[in-house]
Formats: sequence, structure tokens, C-alpha cells
Amino acid sequence: MEFLTKLDRWMPADIGAELHRFAAELYPICRSITGDGIRRTLALIGNRIPLDTANVPTGTPVFDWTVPKEWNIRDGYIKLAGSTRRSVDFQQSNLHVMNYSSPVHKTLPLSELRPHLFTVPEHPGQIPYRTSYYKEDWGFCLSHNQLLALEDGDYEVCIASTLENGYLTYGECHLPGRSNNEVLISCHVCHPSLANDNLSGIAVATFLAQLLTQGDHYYSYRFLFIPGTIGAITWLAQNREAATRIRHGLVLTCLGDKGGFHYKKSRRGDAEIDRVAQHVLSHCGETGEILEFSPYGYDERQYCSPGFNLPVGCLMRSVWGSFPEYHTSADNLDFIRPLSLAESLRVCAIIVDILEQNRRYCNRNPYCEPQLGRRNLYRSAGSEAVGTEISARLWVLNFSDGDHTLLDIAERAGLPFAVIREAAELLRQNGLLSVIPENGRET
Amino acid sequence: MEFLTKLDRWMPADIGAELHRFAAELYPICRSITGDGIRRTLALIGNRIPLDTANVPTGTPVFDWTVPKEWNIRDGYIKLAGSTRRSVDFQQSNLHVMNYSSPVHKTLPLSELRPHLFTVPEHPGQIPYRTSYYKEDWGFCLSHNQLLALEDGDYEVCIASTLENGYLTYGECHLPGRSNNEVLISCHVCHPSLANDNLSGIAVATFLAQLLTQGDHYYSYRFLFIPGTIGAITWLAQNREAATRIRHGLVLTCLGDKGGFHYKKSRRGDAEIDRVAQHVLSHCGETGEILEFSPYGYDERQYCSPGFNLPVGCLMRSVWGSFPEYHTSADNLDFIRPLSLAESLRVCAIIVDILEQNRRYCNRNPYCEPQLGRRNLYRSAGSEAVGTEISARLWVLNFSDGDHTLLDIAERAGLPFAVIREAAELLRQNGLLSVIPENGRET
Amino acid sequence: MEFLTKLDRWMPADIGAELHRFAAELYPICRSITGDGIRRTLALIGNRIPLDTANVPTGTPVFDWTVPKEWNIRDGYIKLAGSTRRSVDFQQSNLHVMNYSSPVHKTLPLSELRPHLFTVPEHPGQIPYRTSYYKEDWGFCLSHNQLLALEDGDYEVCIASTLENGYLTYGECHLPGRSNNEVLISCHVCHPSLANDNLSGIAVATFLAQLLTQGDHYYSYRFLFIPGTIGAITWLAQNREAATRIRHGLVLTCLGDKGGFHYKKSRRGDAEIDRVAQHVLSHCGETGEILEFSPYGYDERQYCSPGFNLPVGCLMRSVWGSFPEYHTSADNLDFIRPLSLAESLRVCAIIVDILEQNRRYCNRNPYCEPQLGRRNLYRSAGSEAVGTEISARLWVLNFSDGDHTLLDIAERAGLPFAVIREAAELLRQNGLLSVIPENGRET
Repeated sequence: MEFLTKLDRWMPADIGAELHRFAAELYPICRSITGDGIRRTLALIGNRIPLDTANVPTGTPVFDWTVPKEWNIRDGYIKLAGSTRRSVDFQQSNLHVMNYSSPVHKTLPLSELRPHLFTVPEHPGQIPYRTSYYKEDWGFCLSHNQLLALEDGDYEVCIASTLENGYLTYGECHLPGRSNNEVLISCHVCHPSLANDNLSGIAVATFLAQLLTQGDHYYSYRFLFIPGTIGAITWLAQNREAATRIRHGLVLTCLGDKGGFHYKKSRRGDAEIDRVAQHVLSHCGETGEILEFSPYGYDERQYCSPGFNLPVGCLMRSVWGSFPEYHTSADNLDFIRPLSLAESLRVCAIIVDILEQNRRYCNRNPYCEPQLGRRNLYRSAGSEAVGTEISARLWVLNFSDGDHTLLDIAERAGLPFAVIREAAELLRQNGLLSVIPENGRET
Repeated sequence: MEFLTKLDRWMPADIGAELHRFAAELYPICRSITGDGIRRTLALIGNRIPLDTANVPTGTPVFDWTVPKEWNIRDGYIKLAGSTRRSVDFQQSNLHVMNYSSPVHKTLPLSELRPHLFTVPEHPGQIPYRTSYYKEDWGFCLSHNQLLALEDGDYEVCIASTLENGYLTYGECHLPGRSNNEVLISCHVCHPSLANDNLSGIAVATFLAQLLTQGDHYYSYRFLFIPGTIGAITWLAQNREAATRIRHGLVLTCLGDKGGFHYKKSRRGDAEIDRVAQHVLSHCGETGEILEFSPYGYDERQYCSPGFNLPVGCLMRSVWGSFPEYHTSADNLDFIRPLSLAESLRVCAIIVDILEQNRRYCNRNPYCEPQLGRRNLYRSAGSEAVGTEISARLWVLNFSDGDHTLLDIAERAGLPFAVIREAAELLRQNGLLSVIPENGRET
Repeated sequence: MEFLTKLDRWMPADIGAELHRFAAELYPICRSITGDGIRRTLALIGNRIPLDTANVPTGTPVFDWTVPKEWNIRDGYIKLAGSTRRSVDFQQSNLHVMNYSSPVHKTLPLSELRPHLFTVPEHPGQIPYRTSYYKEDWGFCLSHNQLLALEDGDYEVCIASTLENGYLTYGECHLPGRSNNEVLISCHVCHPSLANDNLSGIAVATFLAQLLTQGDHYYSYRFLFIPGTIGAITWLAQNREAATRIRHGLVLTCLGDKGGFHYKKSRRGDAEIDRVAQHVLSHCGETGEILEFSPYGYDERQYCSPGFNLPVGCLMRSVWGSFPEYHTSADNLDFIRPLSLAESLRVCAIIVDILEQNRRYCNRNPYCEPQLGRRNLYRSAGSEAVGTEISARLWVLNFSDGDHTLLDIAERAGLPFAVIREAAELLRQNGLLSVIPENGRET
């Protein structure tokens, strides 16, 4: 597809730098599952791709849940009573205030403050990331070193937040294709200054959407930029009909670190997206591991809930929770690498390309092999070895029986999809194959 | 289930001691496939559990077989003619007379006696166990050392047995449950003084039945105490209708030695009992090996004959024929250990418990996850790890789609059945799951 | 079957010597895909087995192909202009002239001759085998040493060949059986003096046919001796109805070298021939490797083209292209060994025997085991080990349920087919089994 050719013309270092630059642009914003942070984030995404935003009012019932109050925050700090120096300061890092903290302003002794302070003792320099969305509470996150430095005494604590009726906001980029069948790409946009767990997924998804705006495609694509859990639930609750059109889907996250790829299968386990992702990971030249579906993780939990059971997997590099930087201030812009981001985008693009190109062909000469030689599609002299290209042609001819897709053939032949696809196209051009229209797929 | 709780309140050493004591009570009796020995054995079992005994007359046709004459024995010996000292004496061990020997009393030279004497040269101290049920013959079994000590000369041999029209006797303990569907537990009761191969199975089966008499259960249970082969054939021939109600079954034997567990699958290979037994062996903390079905072994041969093809497996510790004590006087009360017996009972009880509890549930909120947090069923703060209990709840919710049983879910989650079952019960109590009535199974 | 008994009475060394002698008889002939060489070859085969030959005229359309002109050759050489000594001489080896070379007679400098000369530099003593069937061209094959010895100068080249309208000839040996269902045995006969890749297959196929003429058989057998590719295509094009009767098939080639067996599965992958061949290779005592189907190799390519998709596999020892002698003058009579040929014939005969004997039986006493003891089919005394023969009887009884063939049972029991077959026959003779007529198979 054109967009792959376009991607190939770019240098990975250049794409990587652009992806990283976009992550850096988004990094300072204090996001949450609702509020202005998410709206500012969507605005920056909307600068790059066509994006619709939806605002769902507080109190809207969404399946077993209810859209919560909207949370916004201006400031937050702890300081020794009477001092002017902030011991813990939201302006230094938006992780310092527990996400969704209710407003507070009072003075209290350290002993009473202590239960509201969260650290990671094993990594004394890191600020943890903590939330309390559905239980009204307040708290501060700080490095363990900061905690140890707090002297006894009374502290003024202030969280200048609001928790009021408002909206849950999400963004949607819909790119209609020749078919109504949809590919869903979903990423969460609710984490504040965390780079790998969230910004890497947002950046890759945005650039992938951008690539797809530049040319024709078979599937319609729906990119969702949503708050985790409640956002997916809200979207599914309000778009049940659209959900029925999803044929393949990917949740994107943790795509910027230096680890190898992990693809977590959909609940179905053998959906086309599962097979495509496995194929790409086994041919992409990096290490790739396949994980079975489990009902915890990211928003695939919702897409793969039994009532929907959508064919949606999750593509990651390092798996959430498996790296020490996870959900701490160490998951910062240094933790994500331009080349990792670029290669992640490339893997996503190849997955999309295979979804686009995967179809069934019909061998028009199914009785015995057609004579490739007189069409200059075979080795020129007997006794020469049959190279990969010719072998790919023979595989395509033998298995283009109406039952096997190009991906089936690639897997059976042990060859990359692209080689099989190229052979099929050449054979089609030579009148040896015809495309099988399928679900109205007639391109 | 109540009976498991009851079992758990007992100390394994105490249960083991009781099981061993019962085996010791049964040990001296000279059993065979018919006769008074089996009746005395059934009487002792009947002291502990409700037991019906059936007497099937000699000559009754049972499928391709005929119920044989009844065999009884009072005495048997070999002595040097004119001597008063018995060289081989039935009163010392009932293994000394070949089981089902016809009566004999005569004097003959050692050379003529020799073909009637059986030993185990590789284990010169052990008396072998030998039978000749269907070919009239007589013989003595003795240790190889005894044989070597026989001096040349004439010997008086006497077997005071009778082989006459009578009955084949078996015992049946039927414990009706809420359903007519049955679980079969079968063990053979035809071996004389052999502890592991026979008494261990009898003791475990008796105690399991005793546990089940104390409380409510879904399935009806049928415990068979029958002579090997001919007993199973006779029961099946006379209870063809009852056989159709068997949903799960286990043959119990060799459960007292110190070896690890072996479960031999039913002929079907994927019956629920096969999957339950595998699950229990892989979680019970002892080594457990799964064996494929083969058409030799114990009475599973008959239950799994192609005309019946019942889902009946066989639970053992060491496999028959694989230990040197097998079918010799060394398979005695020292060879079986109280703790092994207790753990065998426990494994059987857990298997029964899973059969009882295994069912399908229906997630009442199949669209997206229900909000566990507001029901206090989730971790309290974001960013905490999801522990086994919560993960079990998510597994149960996601796969309670009407297709998956709790065992299916346990296997997919890699968690013990009990953890999954507990999660399901908690979710049901919280109104998140409903039980699917199945085959009238509505408890 | 009788023919196996007959084979067993022969000494392998004697059969091997005969097979090798036949290969030696065929070796000197210059074969090609058409022409007198193939006709002389078929005449020698026809001395041993009933053989029909078909002649298909040049220009006949066969699917996507056309029967080519007939090629014949009398002589060919290169000599230094004016010299009488031939530098390269067809009379020394028919490999020296590129197969299907068009006639040429001219004098030209070495530099112009050079592009028409083919060698194997890695094996400087070997003459390569090269063809140009479908592109008119001429050339010589010579050892690299010969090439290096050519001094500069003008060379007289002569190829006294004809390329004219004529026929494509193939041989067919049809041995009718009790059924119209057919077993196809196919080998190519188009290679000139090459022993393993072609003559070994021809010799084994001829001897197998000879064995089958001597006695009764269930299947009809069709042995094809055909030029590679175009021959198979021609046969299939002209015998579409006969092709529908093929139930099992084997392509035979490379059966004389000292390597272990390789069986390449049919496209179906689980056809009966695939399972039989795997069973035989795993029990034949030699190393045997199973290869998945691929759409390149020998004429299985055509039989397994998607329009036919016949259950035809390919039996080889060393795989084409995997040994340095392949398609060179080193694939000569020394390269094939009498004992390898004999064992290959034996493996083919056992495969055929299993195809003949594989059927379903019905246990006439499906409820419980029949009493083998009173029929003298069981061990005589209790407590003896159950040997292979008795165990085979129990397997056959338990799985003769109408669903399992003898091969299914052999595989499940892990026993050789012959043992299971013998048990079945014994049980049938004792009235315990009946044969299930299947597709009219009532023998």
C-alpha cells in the first residue's frame, strides 16, 4: 500500500525523532480520565489528524458504570507551616498530587499527613503515579528520599482541585474506507506525565492515522483516544452499533522503550488480527513474544468482555508492570527512544498493510501447474535451484483454492507475507489468478 | 462441600491411622472372586457404610462369561510324608494355596509335586500370588527359599477346598443425590492378603462413601465392591440401565504405597473425570502422572469396553506390575503407609468436590466489566497489583459466557479450581453471576 | 498378503542384486521427455511386467501446456578444429549434450563457444545434467577439469539431434483388483544416465508391480512410467476419469542411495497414505523423516495441484538437491546400493500391504471383554504378564467399534500394524470380530 511505501521513504531516525517530539509536546500536560488535560491533549492530536471529540456528561449511565465528576487541578503542595519553600510541589511534577484528589487546604502534623503520602521505597528517587477515581480521597506522591527529608512538625497541605459535574471527553478519528468494516486502533490518554505508558501509544496511533489519511484503503479505520477503562466502557455503551462493524482491533501502549515486542492475543485467540500480529512479529527482525489473552491489562478487557468479544489484541514492547520505571516518574521522555517508536510505528503499519492485503485468490488453472516458463515466471534452465520468488509463486498457485488466504499461504510456506503478496500480484497480472470477492470485498 | 470441610478438620495422621487400621482388619481374610472370604469382607465394610450385597448364582450367563462355581477353603499344606511339620502351610499365609485350587489330598514324590509349586526366584523371600479361576488345577505358592529347603522324598499334599455351585457376591453402596446422574466408584475385593493391590482401594472407597453419607450432594454415588473382572462383568450385565446413568467414574486401587499418583484416563480421553483428575493431580502438591487409556489393567477394562464406553478412569499411586512387591507376600501391611492412604482419600474427595461444584455460570453484565470497586470486590487504589483473588474474579466474569465451566476457566487461568469456585460464589452473592441450570442441575 | 510372504522368502542381497542389475541395464540409454530413449526404456520394463504404452502427438494441448516436439540424438561432440580427438564426446556420456539441444554443426572460437558450456566448479570431476526443454537452445555439459583443459582456438561443435513432430510416450501398468479403487505408483523415466534420481525409482516400481501380478489384491494398481512434469500433466489431462478413482498414491524416486528414508506428505497432509507411510517409516528399523507437502519436487506437484488434490505422497531416501551427486555424472551405478534398493522395495511393499489390509472390524461382544481364556487366546494363569500378542488382541477388541481402522488401533497401541492385523485375524477366526464392509469392500 502507498502508505507503507511512504513510510519506507522516511529514515527511521527522522520518523523516530518526530514521534519523540510529539510525545515531548504532550508530556507536561496533567491528564486524567476527565478534565482540561485530556482536552488539551486531544487538541494537540487534532492538529495532526482529523479528530472528533465527544463530551459525555457526568452522571451518564454507561453499562454498570456512571460517568464520574470532572476533575481539574491548578496547584498542589506541601510545605512546613510558616515556610515559603514547598516540600512537595505539583508545579515540579504533576505526579505529585494523587490523580483525582479532592480539594484540601489545611495544616496538620506530619503524623496525620503521613497516611496521605505515597512513595516507592525500593526506588527511592522515583515519584509513584497513583489515582483514586472512584473513592473520594486526597494524597501526595513523592520520592522516598523526599519523604525521609520531611522533618517533624505541622504541614500546610493544599490541593487546588475541583471535582464537579462536567464531562468525560474522548477523541475519535474515523477514516472511511471502501468498506464499512472497521479496524479499531485504541489508546488511552488519561495518564499524566508518563511517557511509555501512554504517550508512546498516543504518538504511534496519531502517526499511523496520519499515514492512513494519505491514500485509499479498504477498511474504515477508527482511532480512539480515550481515558482508560471508563473511556472504553463509555465509547462501547454509546456506540454499540459501530462496535458490531469492528473486524480487527489493536490496543496500543508501551511502544517506546527498548524492550522487544509483546502481542497479547484477543479473547478469541485465533482471530485474523492475532494471526497477522504473530506473523509480523516473527518476521520483523526484532524479538517478539506472543501472550495469551487474560482479562486484565488495558482496554482490550472491555473490547473482549464476553458480550462484545471483539477481535482486539494489544501490542506492547515491555509489558506493563514488568519494568521498574512503570507508573513512576522514571517513565519519562528519556525512557522512550526515537528508534523504538519508529519501529513500533512500522510494525503497526505492516500489520495494517497485511489486513488490507489479505484476501483469497483463485487459481485459474487449478489442474496441474500452469506453464510458468513461457510467461517468464520460472527459472530459465532445468536444474537450477528454485529461488524464494519462484517458490512463492508455486505456493500461491497451489493453495489459491478459495479456502486459503494469502496469510494462510505465507504461514504454510514459511515466507513473509510481502513475498507471497508480491507473487500473487504478479500471477494476477499474468492472468493466472483472479481475486475472490468476499464480503463485497472486490478491489 | 461440607464433607471436604469435615475432612479438613481431621489430622491426616489420624485419618491415615484409621484407614490403615481398617486395612489391617481386612488383611487376614482369604478372599477370592467368590466364597465366604468376600462375604466376610463385605460384612466389615457394611459395618461402616450402608451396603447392599447381591448374590448371583453359579451358572448365570453374564455377557460372554458364566458365573463360576463358588470356591471355599479351610486348610492346605505340604508335608514330608510321615512328618508332622508342615513345610508349606495355608494357616501361615493364605497366599500359599493357589487361589481357586481344586481339592486334593495325596502323597507324591517331590518330582511330581514340583510342577505344582510356584516361586519368585528373583525375590527368594516372597510368596507369589497366583490364581487359576477358569481352569481346574491346584498348586502351592511358596518362597523360593522354602522351595530350596525341600528335601527329596514323598510329600503329603492337602488342599481342603470346595468348588461347588453357589454364588458370586458383591457389595453396592448407593447414596442418592439430588440428581439421578451417577458417579461410580469401583474397587475389587477379590485379592487375599495383599494390602496395596486391593485393601488400599477398599479402605479409601469405604471412607469416601462414609464422608458422602454425611450431607447433601448433587450426584448420586454408587460404590461397587466387586470381584475383579467377573464382578464388573456381572454387575454390568445385571445393571445395564443403571450403567446408563453413570456420568463419571473412578476405579480405585494401589493407593497406599509411597509412590506418586497415576491417573489412567478413560477410553474417551477427554471426559470430565479425566480433566478433573488431571487438574487435581497438577495442583495437589504431590507428583502426578497421567496415563493414556489402555485396554488392560483393572475393571476400567469392562466399564470402558466399546459397548459401554463409560467415562471411568483409574486412580493409583504406583502402577500395578511396576513395583517388586506387586502380587507377592511383600505387598503387606508394612508396604502401605497411613499418610499415603490419607492423602489418597483427600485427592479422591477433592475430585468428587470438583465434580459436584463444576458448572456454568452466566455473567449478568456481559458488556464491559462490571464496576467491582463499588462492590468492594476490587483493589482499593489504582496502581496496586491485581492479586490472585481479584484476577480469579476477572477470569470468572470474562468467561462465564454459558460455554465455559468453572473447570474450563480454572484451566485457562492456570488457577486451582477452589480459587475460581470461590470467586464465582462471591460474584454470585453480589448478583453479578447467575447459575445456568443444566440437565436439570439447578442447585 | 502373499506377495509379502514371497518377498520375505527372498534374500535381500539377492533382490538387491536383481534391482541393481535392472538399473544397470537401463543406465546407458539416453532418455529425455520424449524420443527413442524413453521407448527403449519402456520396452525393457515391459519385459518384466504387463505394460501399455501411449503415444501422444506433438502439439496436443494438455491443460496449460502443449506436448512438445520429439527429441532424438545420435551423436554430439566438441573438437579442436582440424583435430580428430573429441574434447567432449556424447559417446562417452550422454550427459555431455544438454538434453533437448537443437541440432548444430559449426566451428567457432572458444570465446563464442564458452556460453554454451556448463560445469560444476565445486565438483570439478563431475559432468552436470542440464536440460532446455521449452526454450530452443544447445549446449554441452562437461567436467570443470575438461573445461580448464580446453586450449584457446577454434572448435568444431556438432550435435546430431532432431527436434521434430512426433510423440510423447509413457508406459502404464494397470493391475485390476477386486475393487475399482486405485493405488497410483508413479515414477519419472526422463533422466538419462542418472542412477538414483530416476533408475532407482523405475527399478523399485517395476519390481513392486511384478510382485503384485502374483496374486489377488483388493485395490487396482496403476503404475505410471512417465516423463517428469509434462508426462504427469499429459496423463492427468487424458485420464481425468481414471484420476477420480485414485485413493492412495506414491511418487517413487531416489531410492537407491545409502541415506535414510524421507516421506513427503500429500497436500492433504492426513490422507491414509500419509499415515501409512509414517507408520511404516517409524517401524521399519531405518531412520525415517516426514516432510510436509510443498509445491515443488517431483510429480506429486501435479497430482496435488488444487484441481486434483489427490492423496499422493513421495517416498525418497536422500532428498533431491541435498546430496552433491544430484544431477551430475556422480549419480551413477556405484552411487546406488543393492541393499538400499532391496529395503526400499520392502518398505513400498509393506506400505501396499497395509493399504490392502487396513479396514474396520466390529467387535461382536462389545459389552465387556469376551472370555479369551476359554478360547485359548489369553495367558494361561493369572498373574502372568500380558505379552504383546495378548495386548494386541485387547486393543483390537476394545477399539473395533466401527470407527477405528486397524491402523488407527496400531497407532493408538503403539504397535506395528502387522501385530494388530494378526490379532484381528485370529479374533475373526474365533468368531469375535466381523469385518465391516466399506465402500463395497467386503473381502
